[in-house]
Amino acid sequence: MTSTVTVVEHIMSANDRLAAQNRAELETSRVLGVNVLASPGAGKTSVILRTIEVLQESLQLGVIEGDTAAVTIDTDKIMSAGMPAVQINTGGQCHLDAVMMGNALPQMPLADIDLLIVENVGNLICPASFTLGTHFNIVIASVPEGDDKPYKYPNIYRSIDALILNKTDLLPYIDFNTEYFRRGIEILNPDVHFFPMSCKTGEGVPEWADWLRERVAIFQKNA
Amino acid sequence: MTSTVTVVEHIMSANDRLAAQNRAELETSRVLGVNVLASPGAGKTSVILRTIEVLQESLQLGVIEGDTAAVTIDTDKIMSAGMPAVQINTGGQCHLDAVMMGNALPQMPLADIDLLIVENVGNLICPASFTLGTHFNIVIASVPEGDDKPYKYPNIYRSIDALILNKTDLLPYIDFNTEYFRRGIEILNPDVHFFPMSCKTGEGVPEWADWLRERVAIFQKNA
Repeated sequence: MTSTVTVVEHIMSANDRLAAQNRAELETSRVLGVNVLASPGAGKTSVILRTIEVLQESLQLGVIEGDTAAVTIDTDKIMSAGMPAVQINTGGQCHLDAVMMGNALPQMPLADIDLLIVENVGNLICPASFTLGTHFNIVIASVPEGDDKPYKYPNIYRSIDALILNKTDLLPYIDFNTEYFRRGIEILNPDVHFFPMSCKTGEGVPEWADWLRERVAIFQKNA
Repeated sequence: MTSTVTVVEHIMSANDRLAAQNRAELETSRVLGVNVLASPGAGKTSVILRTIEVLQESLQLGVIEGDTAAVTIDTDKIMSAGMPAVQINTGGQCHLDAVMMGNALPQMPLADIDLLIVENVGNLICPASFTLGTHFNIVIASVPEGDDKPYKYPNIYRSIDALILNKTDLLPYIDFNTEYFRRGIEILNPDVHFFPMSCKTGEGVPEWADWLRERVAIFQKNA
């Protein structure tokens, strides 16, 4: 009687392989990469601009902007804030992937950057399925989207490290149950870091920026 | 010298062929179909519930609910309003397609229905590429998503017949330039019918319901 040992190898998809190359490229330059996911209009660019305001004193930032159309509204805002920015126009496609990310990286002055923020296409579904090579995934939810979103779009919440709940300044005008929202997240992802925020008032921005600064420090110490 | 006449035939995609079958099935039963598209949290279900309130006196309605996950939050709301409702769980997929629609139709009492509303998956990109066989496409935008969405997500606005701008009750609290928003739409789709609305206050609901009631009347007269 012979006994057979089957070695099950994790076969990486083509996208994951390219994402691993992107990750290696970031690490060679000691750049921490953050992938920012959200619905259209949740406030991705506003959060990034607020983050730049707080962190630019202590860190060098760069931004990759994912857009489905050839408009430069968001990229212009980032560049006006004095940051190196590269726009990826997906040509109507619904998500960024590791190929697009790999094409954008050489246009970034990685050697001069500590933190690379990637603003994904506004979409709560498709971007969750494509790794880019970044180190952290962040979702920006927003109060007017409603407290039931984690229950309705669970996949994207499962793989994230931090969650920003933006537009808390609108809480007085909207029927939003923060406990119900948080419970939905906790079922899917109990370890996620949660940051209520208002880009309008600035509430919550320092706590988020502190968390991000600490992530960069730990990363660069170990890199 | 011979002259060659090339007949260019429009080759329908598999999805379009199935959509045409769905359309034929709706027309056999004299049912007008409306495909409702929007970002997550723009208020699709709220608009549908408001529409039911106003139209149920004069029309028989049915609703197909598209969801990416196996939650019945929206379907329960529709059924609580006394409407026949069928849920399509896309299993994580980012849009409805004509196959899913074709599978849902036999579960609907079409002979008893005048107006079938299809709530697509919350996504401003992918659903624009898949016809279902419905007669009209509607987008529900919302004030907190921002006035730049037509510029950033142009494809979905090109193929629609009516546009609802929901959550106008939040206009006093949000920096939203309605003229800039409308200009973005007009560039893409000058003939679109525009309905500012607040599901919270009811503003704009009668105008939208009148338009829809008229579409059903015209359709049934010609069917």
